[in-house]
Amino acid sequence: MTPLTVGNARVKEARKLSRRSVRTERRLFLADGPKAVEGALEVPDRVVEVFATPSAAEQHAALLAGADATLVDDRALASLSDAVNPAGLVAVVRHFDQAVDDMLDANGMLVICADIRDPGNAGTVLRTADAAGAHAVVFAGQSVDPYNPKTVRASVGSLFHVPFAIDSDPEGLIRNAQANGWVVLAADGGGEVDLFEADDLLNQRVAWLFGNEAWGLPAELAELADHRVRIPIHGRAESLNLATAAALCLYASARSLRNQGH
Amino acid sequence: MTPLTVGNARVKEARKLSRRSVRTERRLFLADGPKAVEGALEVPDRVVEVFATPSAAEQHAALLAGADATLVDDRALASLSDAVNPAGLVAVVRHFDQAVDDMLDANGMLVICADIRDPGNAGTVLRTADAAGAHAVVFAGQSVDPYNPKTVRASVGSLFHVPFAIDSDPEGLIRNAQANGWVVLAADGGGEVDLFEADDLLNQRVAWLFGNEAWGLPAELAELADHRVRIPIHGRAESLNLATAAALCLYASARSLRNQGH
Repeated sequence: MTPLTVGNARVKEARKLSRRSVRTERRLFLADGPKAVEGALEVPDRVVEVFATPSAAEQHAALLAGADATLVDDRALASLSDAVNPAGLVAVVRHFDQAVDDMLDANGMLVICADIRDPGNAGTVLRTADAAGAHAVVFAGQSVDPYNPKTVRASVGSLFHVPFAIDSDPEGLIRNAQANGWVVLAADGGGEVDLFEADDLLNQRVAWLFGNEAWGLPAELAELADHRVRIPIHGRAESLNLATAAALCLYASARSLRNQGH
Repeated sequence: MTPLTVGNARVKEARKLSRRSVRTERRLFLADGPKAVEGALEVPDRVVEVFATPSAAEQHAALLAGADATLVDDRALASLSDAVNPAGLVAVVRHFDQAVDDMLDANGMLVICADIRDPGNAGTVLRTADAAGAHAVVFAGQSVDPYNPKTVRASVGSLFHVPFAIDSDPEGLIRNAQANGWVVLAADGGGEVDLFEADDLLNQRVAWLFGNEAWGLPAELAELADHRVRIPIHGRAESLNLATAAALCLYASARSLRNQGH
């Protein structure tokens, strides 16, 4: 088969998925690179189509076995990727975010991001949540689209491993979580609880609440939480970045749960 | 005074500092934005010149009191900044990295980055080291230039608060640290010590050693360390990003030192 070129209708349709509005309308997104494509292929019927350059198809033959990849030339592949050096594989994948309510029924550790706006941060939070053993992540309020290519890339596969949900109403979500027995802890630089003296709080069914990278949590959400937890700052830094703060909170929970024998 | 334009000789000379080779040769760099300029101005004789747009000069009059800012037009200012939305202030600042040997004489917690290549990561590590109370950071081996504009920005002022050094020989540095009584802990996904069971190690004069974001620490450096410490991974993530890993290690140290009453 001759590889499809950049002007091919299927390539053009796929390329439209770089726009959030089109992703949302079609409930499809682009998984870019072998790591993401591998994650997408793990679940049957999730992948609509895989585009690959001839050389990538050869290099990743094992990964693509049974996937029936469509060959495209380098320029067509690059038009589907926002990576500086595209790895030669891009899949069109169905959305698979889950219902929030199912997450609230489960046990474990929940992560709620309210108005997180940077796609790279969102991906890093997913990766860290995965590593820390969180059972689910909710992108709430005006958060970035988790299907943004930068988010998919920064998650290094974790988008496909950690269940996540999208919810437009963080306030309703917090009340709902509390009604379901979750202890909601807001990460807040001015919080009344020191993270490293919070083991009694962390040894529960905890939902961590993180705010926007620039302006933090809105006061009304922070007040709605059961407790506000601060990370101690020892030097002259005024704050930590969001992904760093999330890592410290989630791992403090993981450590506490482990020490309690959970 | 009429604001200088983009073609002015002083502006042109300053603009050359966007190149690492010129920064290194002249021992000068650009501090971009009010936060960085404020940090630079805290130490006498560190700032060579401040460029400001007329509106930024007015807005930041208190900050610039005594700094004798040179007015430039918007386009000239933008040519000195790599920010998407320049804040109107850029200073030409003398290098102020310190000698490694002085750092090894001190007490506290030391951070050694070997071959860290992403400027944003380097800045985030500085910010986190500051927050965790580290006393110094060494950029060793083929690390990024800490005076890179992206590093300065990502450090959110901490470049000016945490002493740092540049050292081309990480192996020599590790041996030297050990000879000076430091316990060198390598952050290593395959390490033999679990970070959260390492309190006995952390309660010492610790130098943390971090490797490159993509390929980690070279085996010969990891083996040279006194211990290799892994962060437990609970989910399916294969690893954590470098800045996240550094935050968890440095804060585990800070927590341990606090619990031991240091």
